[in-house]
Amino acid sequence: MTQENSELEVYERQGYGRKSGFGERPALVVVDFVNGFADPDQFGGGNIQEAINKSVNLIRTARTAEIPIAYTRVVYADDQSDTGVFCLKAPNLAKLTETAHSSQIVDQLAPHPGDYIVRKLQPSAFFGTNLSAWLIGQSVDTVIVAGCTTSGCVRATVVDSMSYNFKTIVASDCVGDRALAPHKANLFDMEQKNADLMTEREISERLLG
Amino acid sequence: MTQENSELEVYERQGYGRKSGFGERPALVVVDFVNGFADPDQFGGGNIQEAINKSVNLIRTARTAEIPIAYTRVVYADDQSDTGVFCLKAPNLAKLTETAHSSQIVDQLAPHPGDYIVRKLQPSAFFGTNLSAWLIGQSVDTVIVAGCTTSGCVRATVVDSMSYNFKTIVASDCVGDRALAPHKANLFDMEQKNADLMTEREISERLLG
Amino acid sequence: MTQENSELEVYERQGYGRKSGFGERPALVVVDFVNGFADPDQFGGGNIQEAINKSVNLIRTARTAEIPIAYTRVVYADDQSDTGVFCLKAPNLAKLTETAHSSQIVDQLAPHPGDYIVRKLQPSAFFGTNLSAWLIGQSVDTVIVAGCTTSGCVRATVVDSMSYNFKTIVASDCVGDRALAPHKANLFDMEQKNADLMTEREISERLLG
Amino acid sequence: MTQENSELEVYERQGYGRKSGFGERPALVVVDFVNGFADPDQFGGGNIQEAINKSVNLIRTARTAEIPIAYTRVVYADDQSDTGVFCLKAPNLAKLTETAHSSQIVDQLAPHPGDYIVRKLQPSAFFGTNLSAWLIGQSVDTVIVAGCTTSGCVRATVVDSMSYNFKTIVASDCVGDRALAPHKANLFDMEQKNADLMTEREISERLLG
Repeated sequence: MTQENSELEVYERQGYGRKSGFGERPALVVVDFVNGFADPDQFGGGNIQEAINKSVNLIRTARTAEIPIAYTRVVYADDQSDTGVFCLKAPNLAKLTETAHSSQIVDQLAPHPGDYIVRKLQPSAFFGTNLSAWLIGQSVDTVIVAGCTTSGCVRATVVDSMSYNFKTIVASDCVGDRALAPHKANLFDMEQKNADLMTEREISERLLG
Repeated sequence: MTQENSELEVYERQGYGRKSGFGERPALVVVDFVNGFADPDQFGGGNIQEAINKSVNLIRTARTAEIPIAYTRVVYADDQSDTGVFCLKAPNLAKLTETAHSSQIVDQLAPHPGDYIVRKLQPSAFFGTNLSAWLIGQSVDTVIVAGCTTSGCVRATVVDSMSYNFKTIVASDCVGDRALAPHKANLFDMEQKNADLMTEREISERLLG
Repeated sequence: MTQENSELEVYERQGYGRKSGFGERPALVVVDFVNGFADPDQFGGGNIQEAINKSVNLIRTARTAEIPIAYTRVVYADDQSDTGVFCLKAPNLAKLTETAHSSQIVDQLAPHPGDYIVRKLQPSAFFGTNLSAWLIGQSVDTVIVAGCTTSGCVRATVVDSMSYNFKTIVASDCVGDRALAPHKANLFDMEQKNADLMTEREISERLLG
Repeated sequence: MTQENSELEVYERQGYGRKSGFGERPALVVVDFVNGFADPDQFGGGNIQEAINKSVNLIRTARTAEIPIAYTRVVYADDQSDTGVFCLKAPNLAKLTETAHSSQIVDQLAPHPGDYIVRKLQPSAFFGTNLSAWLIGQSVDTVIVAGCTTSGCVRATVVDSMSYNFKTIVASDCVGDRALAPHKANLFDMEQKNADLMTEREISERLLG
């Protein structure tokens, strides 16, 4: 038995990894697909561009299905008055200001009027934002998460989404990371403990089927 | 270059993994070291017992240094009125009720009067609890985290601790997981993006030095 | 024109006091109707007993309509490890411990199995509790609030309920206060800015009609 | 005995209205002193302009004492994608968009570079914002609140500040309301249960003394 199989076995035996399911009123949350995270010279690399490409379809489907769509951006004040511990760990994040090119949502996935744009300072799209209130206001019971990075802001968003008792779906081919081992490890953690994993195709069939 | 080195390199190049540091007024948060998570037949296994053993020293040091100490337990209502999506993903968690043996803190690490006991329903010790308020009331600026599991409730607690702008320290040999690959992967993620890693010995020297 | 009319007029002219409405999936939240708040020698008095009497009907209706019901209690640790600024302002609150008679829900309104019991340390039923997550898990869009005191924990709960974008209904004859002027002033504030006011009879007709 | 004295007496007898005190590391939070709330034809009137005038001194003192300063603004998206129940109760609030004149901080109190500007959608300056994290990052233990309206966003901010265990000071002559009865009623509630009241002069003496 390989180590990985052995680990999967302990989760299985302890009852982790069950399905939490897909509810009746889904929303899509697109995490941090901004220029800076699409650029390998800034915060990007790995399979992030691939995830952006797949997200084009997912967002199109979401619009067709007329479900609410939120996008997140990391936005710090120009004078850095709102930076904190996150920017001590990763100082370059502080360059993501309101008008910086790096903090704009990538053209491929440009929001439409009426989409909710979440400005955030911390990994989770829920922390210090109005996202939970917005989802409640939209009567959402299921949150589909795309974005980057799998091991960072996607993971934090998914854990909070589940904690708020939204049935949570990770769009497994619409999330990406600058490095593949953390991407894979975090998909494992999220599937075992927080969310169901579905591909863009599976989600689209569910939304349009 | 191995894959792991290559991944470390991309984080290094993008400016992740800097130190956030150790402040002036630390507190210790001991996450979910309860009987059920010490028992390989329930939620335990891996290196959790080893982490409990090391935490004996850490907690003793924290008492000597007279820093505030909080412990968390997962506690659901006897009638399951408060279970949610987390218990859909991992149904056995719902057995952790107020008086269940599995939800009691392990004897080795028994709390003292005056320690703050956090009852929680979600992975993060901050979510749906009074922990942030308690830490503020204690004038804490630094949160040291021990407990289990590294890939679950420790990780969620650490991300929230950082998001609240507490300088966050993962006691690297006082956190454990039922499986070693997720343990290691999550230590990597936390060190790169959320917290500084220090051993029990390093923390003790800092607290008592 | 009396002063009160003049004040109502400024709110009216500025567009406050519109109806937010009653949604499709209501829940009832009963705030702090515990022995200590029913007792004029502890935290009670005014019209609180009258509000408890009216709440008997409201809760019966809620059970008939099969909507989710939550009750809150203020519960501090026996060793006072979790008290904070609220207990500096009102030290007697710290007597409300898990087993104290004063912190038990009044017999008249005894919860049934399956009702969600929220233990809280702060005025709002949402602060440091799992209430928002529980409501989301129940797919609630409307929160009906009964309880005491109107000027304290009811007001704080109502403001948070609205902030989370739950359509919020104050059961105007099922909320009470130790003093009538604050009761009346807070009903005014909540109706203008946070919630719709409905009597027990109006709510019951809505739930059963 | 007048009704008011009688009510004060019940609070006194039940142990409310004690002092929570002034800590070592204060910050100043200036709530919603924007053009729209200074204008009696929009959301203003009453004693709001008077409170703004007094706040000139308070802010000057805060700068001299070099304590952290935060300002809040209500800011909704231009396309109204983020409005909710608050805007159902008071539809005109939705006019407070990023570039609207009505949502700009009044010239008299113009922020300086480095002040933290909180954009918010709900009454409390803490709800859905990074304010608690910012205060923790600044090692604050005491929050001084100025702003408007006393019965609305000031009250909500003060209740949350106390709930987070910040010792909370209402600058009693630097808060204002469109109507005087709610102003007075809410000062009473806050003093009894949430915060200490101090005048601008008393706070300035404390900060500079």
